[in-house]
Formats: sequence, structure tokens, C-alpha cells
Amino acid sequence: MVKKIKLGLLGGGTVGTGVIKVLQDNYHDIKEKIGCDIEVSKVLVRNVEKHRALSDMVTLTTNADDILEDKEIDIVVELLGGIHPALEYMLKAMNNGKHVVTANKDVVAQFGKDVFDAAEKNDVDFMFEASVGGGIPIITPLKQSLTANKITDLIGIVNGTTNYMLTKMAEQGMDYATALQRAQAKGYAEADPTADVEGLDAARKVAILSSIAFNTRISLDDVKVEGITKITPEDISYAKELGFAVKLLAVAKNTKDGIDVRVHPTFLPKSHPLASVRNVYNAVFIHGNAVGDTMFYGRGAGEKPTASAVLADIIDVARDMGKDRFGRIRCTCYEEKKLCPPDKVRSGYYIRLLVEDKPGVLGAIATAFGESEISLHSVIQKRKVADRSEIVAITHDVNNSQIEDIKVRLNNLDVVSEISNMIRVIMPQGD
Amino acid sequence: MVKKIKLGLLGGGTVGTGVIKVLQDNYHDIKEKIGCDIEVSKVLVRNVEKHRALSDMVTLTTNADDILEDKEIDIVVELLGGIHPALEYMLKAMNNGKHVVTANKDVVAQFGKDVFDAAEKNDVDFMFEASVGGGIPIITPLKQSLTANKITDLIGIVNGTTNYMLTKMAEQGMDYATALQRAQAKGYAEADPTADVEGLDAARKVAILSSIAFNTRISLDDVKVEGITKITPEDISYAKELGFAVKLLAVAKNTKDGIDVRVHPTFLPKSHPLASVRNVYNAVFIHGNAVGDTMFYGRGAGEKPTASAVLADIIDVARDMGKDRFGRIRCTCYEEKKLCPPDKVRSGYYIRLLVEDKPGVLGAIATAFGESEISLHSVIQKRKVADRSEIVAITHDVNNSQIEDIKVRLNNLDVVSEISNMIRVIMPQGD
Repeated sequence: MVKKIKLGLLGGGTVGTGVIKVLQDNYHDIKEKIGCDIEVSKVLVRNVEKHRALSDMVTLTTNADDILEDKEIDIVVELLGGIHPALEYMLKAMNNGKHVVTANKDVVAQFGKDVFDAAEKNDVDFMFEASVGGGIPIITPLKQSLTANKITDLIGIVNGTTNYMLTKMAEQGMDYATALQRAQAKGYAEADPTADVEGLDAARKVAILSSIAFNTRISLDDVKVEGITKITPEDISYAKELGFAVKLLAVAKNTKDGIDVRVHPTFLPKSHPLASVRNVYNAVFIHGNAVGDTMFYGRGAGEKPTASAVLADIIDVARDMGKDRFGRIRCTCYEEKKLCPPDKVRSGYYIRLLVEDKPGVLGAIATAFGESEISLHSVIQKRKVADRSEIVAITHDVNNSQIEDIKVRLNNLDVVSEISNMIRVIMPQGD
Repeated sequence: MVKKIKLGLLGGGTVGTGVIKVLQDNYHDIKEKIGCDIEVSKVLVRNVEKHRALSDMVTLTTNADDILEDKEIDIVVELLGGIHPALEYMLKAMNNGKHVVTANKDVVAQFGKDVFDAAEKNDVDFMFEASVGGGIPIITPLKQSLTANKITDLIGIVNGTTNYMLTKMAEQGMDYATALQRAQAKGYAEADPTADVEGLDAARKVAILSSIAFNTRISLDDVKVEGITKITPEDISYAKELGFAVKLLAVAKNTKDGIDVRVHPTFLPKSHPLASVRNVYNAVFIHGNAVGDTMFYGRGAGEKPTASAVLADIIDVARDMGKDRFGRIRCTCYEEKKLCPPDKVRSGYYIRLLVEDKPGVLGAIATAFGESEISLHSVIQKRKVADRSEIVAITHDVNNSQIEDIKVRLNNLDVVSEISNMIRVIMPQGD
């Protein structure tokens, strides 16, 4: 019979503080649910002075081994982020017989196999719900609730910073730079926003989700990534007019040609459940061959939402400790599926062109699309820009070589001054 | 080491057939995930002739004891629906040492304590994900993923039939009777639609969800229920005009005055994530003190979606069998919370009145509201109906006695011909 579960936190920042606070706020219920006492016994910090506020409640240390070598600590909660030394600390904890709960998307996306192997070898639990989607339950639903399905499609808004920026651009007409400044002022974007705006954060998360959904290891390198830096107020305004929202989507598909995983800005029909996900909210849309369409929605980051996910994992481990049986659900990557060749990936496109304003231009452009064997959903001649005019085309699904082909053809047309932007499109479907 | 898990199905109808089909379609992956073989060994049906299509794959029987007394059957899957004999069969199965998975909302909502006690006594698993929200993962997320939260609000669209009807009324202008006929023609509504349209189906589901969310047993009798039969095209059209959708909501709140659980049609702001849940889709919106707002969306019924949830539970039990440890998460009703007294329940109201068309009417009505101490969000004089005119008022939050009071006052006014309808309102909130 377990009397008291002791937690060692690696990291006393936002999420660590959240875990301590939520455990304190909801202590009575959490204790009731796990059937024994639970406490945060030590927290690893870089600077004890800076975290003095925590020192009334927990023991602070600057030496990781004070936690990793402490025989009384049952669960190590890794909240440092980044690969090193988080990875080494987690491995050491597991080798010392401790269960590990983490919010670290970098380690899971890039060194997933290593940590799962260590968990298996040491017969300990390794849990990572908080690594994707903040407080949104998504790893557990995938590993348990939807596990009877063959999952074919997973589409997520998994980066709150960029979703906030795109919401502001759409609803308040801000340009990219202003939206970024606003996000930074609100604390939603870092001083160096690269990982968010270039799609790398979303790529790590979709690597984790698709590995679980498709039962094959997808690493960060397998994800094609494109950020939102080229999105202009014009694109967003055309999207609206045509019945679309512009979202940075993480898209993962299990196709007959292989696994296709990518992150890119997308024109999404207004009627799609993901289109109304606003501001810093995240959501993951999943299609399974039994369940059909499902969606999971909530706050993708923040002190308490992320702590909610971390504590759910801690409580799950505690329930396993009560039964003295670990590793109920191990790594689920039991297959090695191949990636979809780039040329088999198909998608619709929005193409915005600047063209000469004279008769016959539309015909010349339509002919070029025809020569690339691209069928058009719509072509619209839009506003004037100085002595030129703008044309917006939406294509039906095409493959990569068709898109490369049409780029060359359009650039070769005298009447085309520039291809201003190309953004992928998901077409509306009937219900 | 378990070699093969044998399932006995009670019921070979829609969901039973779905379970057999999905297990067949996804057999390879399911076997891989549980680490052993699995098969449906017997199915209880009322009429073997009628289910001849199944008899190639499984053994059919009309005698429940062929399953309940079969020592080789590990898991009994109860899909009969209704209280009797489903309850007795489940209890017998557990007393014979079998795990039970069910989709039966009636038994869980009304005899939850009995089945949980039997599971505890016999150290077997009892699982019921499919009893609420069809394929939507909701029970497992509540019991595991959100378990570190104090849940304060749970709002669900948990009846697909009525959501389909209200969608058709809103989008195609159908009246109630036509929408019901359409739902019946599509197979979404029964010949006797009472349980759906009067809100009883939703009431059972919210009793189950709120028991888990608030850790106290809420039974069907604790739920205040009002159906959609009084909703007219006029109400829906006013709702639209005022920026609302009309939805049949299951609302459960954990307030300082007690637990408040009810089912009723509601004016919901268009900006609320539940407002865009269309047709037969279901969704459950949950607010926790750590996670904030979350939502779970998907198909609330149907052969394969429900089978997805049933099989998730079966796989969970199989994973427990692999570890030979059961009851990781037992009944979570460890408290006895009181219900909120009716007079403490507060809500906004939409009130549609038919009044005489003469000067001073609006003033008289506004005065009546003032005397009931009801503050108005808006009062709008609307269309003409013969020689009368219609007035629509939206109130801020009021309690029950204020609503009873204003009814009397309005009925006593000479200028008021009738109170045409009163529907609860959830007000838009800032973000």
C-alpha cells in the first residue's frame, strides 16, 4: 500500500509553478482520486534566489542529482524543455527506477524511441500528455479512446501564437508585423518568434500525434514545414470573401501511398469545425474509420492548462502505483510505415497573381493552367494595384509536379508580373 | 499470459453488428495493441433467423446463460439497452467473474451504484464510454485527462435527433413537425420520438456525465427536463436575428449553492463553440478550474461510432487482463453533494409576447419587468400578427421566483394577449 507519493520537479518556471498551484488548489480531490497522499518534494531550479516564492512550499535545489538520486522520489516531472539536459535527466530517472512525466515536445519528437525503450527496460511509466495541445486531452484519447480505429486524417491547430496572430489579422485587419507585436506584448510570442511563426513548434507536435495515430515513428525530419511569415492582409481578405479562414494547420494523413505529414498555412472552409477556433485556442480534428470525425478543443498553452495535463499523467502513474503494475500502454509504434513520396501528395491551391490589365489576360492564364492539367475551382479578377490588376485562382487538388509546372508557365507569361502568393486549400465537403 | 480474449455480446442489433464489423476491419491493429488474440465468441439475439447474416462469423444464442455461464468468456458486452433484463445480466456476469462493457445509459444513469458495487466486489472492470456521446471520447477524458480539475461547468449537445431537427429548422426554415418527419425518414428519430424530443435521453446522459464531473451521484430524477416540442420557426428566426442559435442543451453546474443539472432548449450565442455543432453531431463543453474551456466533438450515435467507443473499452479491459490488475479507476462518486435549490438557479430568458398594437404597451411591459426586479438586456417590438404585434424581450440572469412573478404580472396586463414562449438564454461572454 502506497502511503505518500513524492514528486521531483525538474524546472520551476511557468508550468512547474502551475503544477504546484493546481495540486494545492485541488489537493483534497486529487488525494481522494489516487487513494493516498501526494506532494511535490523537490524542485530543480537554476537560481534559488529567483524562485524564493516557491521555497516556503518545496525544497529548491540547483543540483539535478538531488532529485534523480533521491530514493524517496517516485515520479520525476520534467519541465525544462529543450533536448539537453532534459533527455539525459529523464533517462537517468528511469534507470533509477523512477516514473517520468514530461511536457517536453522536443525530446518526444526527436528521441521518442530512446525514452520509450528506457521506460520498457526499467518497467516504469513514461507519460507526455502535456507535450501537445497544452491542457487538451489528446494523447490519452488517441492511445485509449480512439485506439480501435484506423486513423486516416489528423488535422490540428496546435500553435497558439500563430493562431492568435491569424485571428487578429482576420478580425482586426492587422498586418503580420502588427499581429506579431501584439502577440509579443501579450506574452504569447517569444522575443525570437522563429519556432512559432516558421511552424517548427507545430511540426514537433504533429510528429508526436501522427506517430501515435498511425503507429509508426514520425520524427521531426519527416515533417514538411512552412510558416505564416508570407501571409498578407490581402490573402486573408480574399479568403474571407471566398468563404475560407486562413489557419496554420498541422496535417497528417495515412494514405495508400504512405504517411504524409506537413505544417503550412491553409485556406480552410468556414464550415469546417477548425475554422472557428480563435485566438490562442488549439484544436485537433481526427478522422477514424469507425468513429468518423471527432475534434478536441481547448487551451494549447499556459500555466494552469498545461499543469492540468501534467497532473493527469501524474494521477495516472499514481493509479498504476496503487496496482503496482506499470506500462499498461507502452510505445504504440509497432509498425514501420513509409512516407508518402512528395509527388503523391495532393492538395488544392490558392494562387494570387499580379497581371497586366489588358484584354485576353484571363484567357492566357486559364490556358496555362489547362496545359499543366490543373482544373480550376474558380478564377476571379480582383482589385487594381497601380496599373496592374490582381487575379485570384483556386485550384482543385493537384500534385507537386503540377504546381512546379504551373509556376514555370505563369512566370513565363509576359502578362504575369508576379506570383504574389500560393497557399494550400482544403475544399468544403458536403454533409 | 493471456492467449485469446473471448467476448460475449448481449444484443446483435446496430451496435452489436458494428462491434463485429469494426473488430473484423481493424483486427490486425487491435490484436497488436492488446498483445493477444481476440474474438466475439457468442451473441445473444432474440431471433436467430433474423440475424442469420451474423451466424457465419459467430455463434448465436437466444439464451443469455449460454454467455453469462460460459467459463471461456472473459468480457460480456451488454448492448440490449433498457433497464431489464440488461441490469440483471450485467450483475450476473460480474458475479461470475466477467468484465462488463456496456453502452447502456439507462442502467448507468439509474442503477450506477449497483453495477459499480458489483464490479468492486468481484474485482472486475466495468466500462461504459459508449453510454454517452456515441463515439466521442468523453468518459475516459473526464475520468483520466481532466481529473486534476475541479469541474465547474459542463454543457452538452448530447442528443443527435433533436440537434438534427433544430439544425433543419434553423437552416431550412422547417417547422417542428416537418423536421421530426425528416428525422424519422432518415432513421434518426424513432416512431415514438418522446425520449428524444422531450429531453429524457439527454437527461440520462447528463446524469452520467455530471456524476463523473462532480464526483457525486446524480440520478435521472435529479435532472430538470424540458424538451423542444414548443420551439417554433418564429423563435428560431428571432434567435438568428439576435445572434443566437437554438440548441437543446444539457447543462450541469457545480455552484456554491449545490449541483444544478438540467436539460432545456437554449438561446446560445453564435460565438459559443457549441453553436456551430450541426445535424446529428454531439459535443460536450467542459470548464475546469485548471484547464479552462475544453470541448469534445463527434458523432453521438450510429453503428460504427458507437462500436469505436465499445471497442475502446474492450481494449482497455484487455490491457488490464495483460497486467492481471483490474479496477484501476472505480466509481468516482466519493462525495455526496447537495442539489442546488431551484430558487438559486439563475439564467437569462427570451420571452416572446403577443400584445395589443397601441401606444404605451412597451412602457407597461417594461414597468412589469421592473416590478419583478428583472433587468432587461433588450426589448424589441417585432412583426405584426393580425391586429396584434409581437414583442421579444431578452432578460439578464434571473431566478425562478422572478420568472414566476413576471409570468403572473404579464398575464395580468390587459394589453398582453399571450406569453407565446419562454426560452432560457446563455449570454455572450468576452474573450
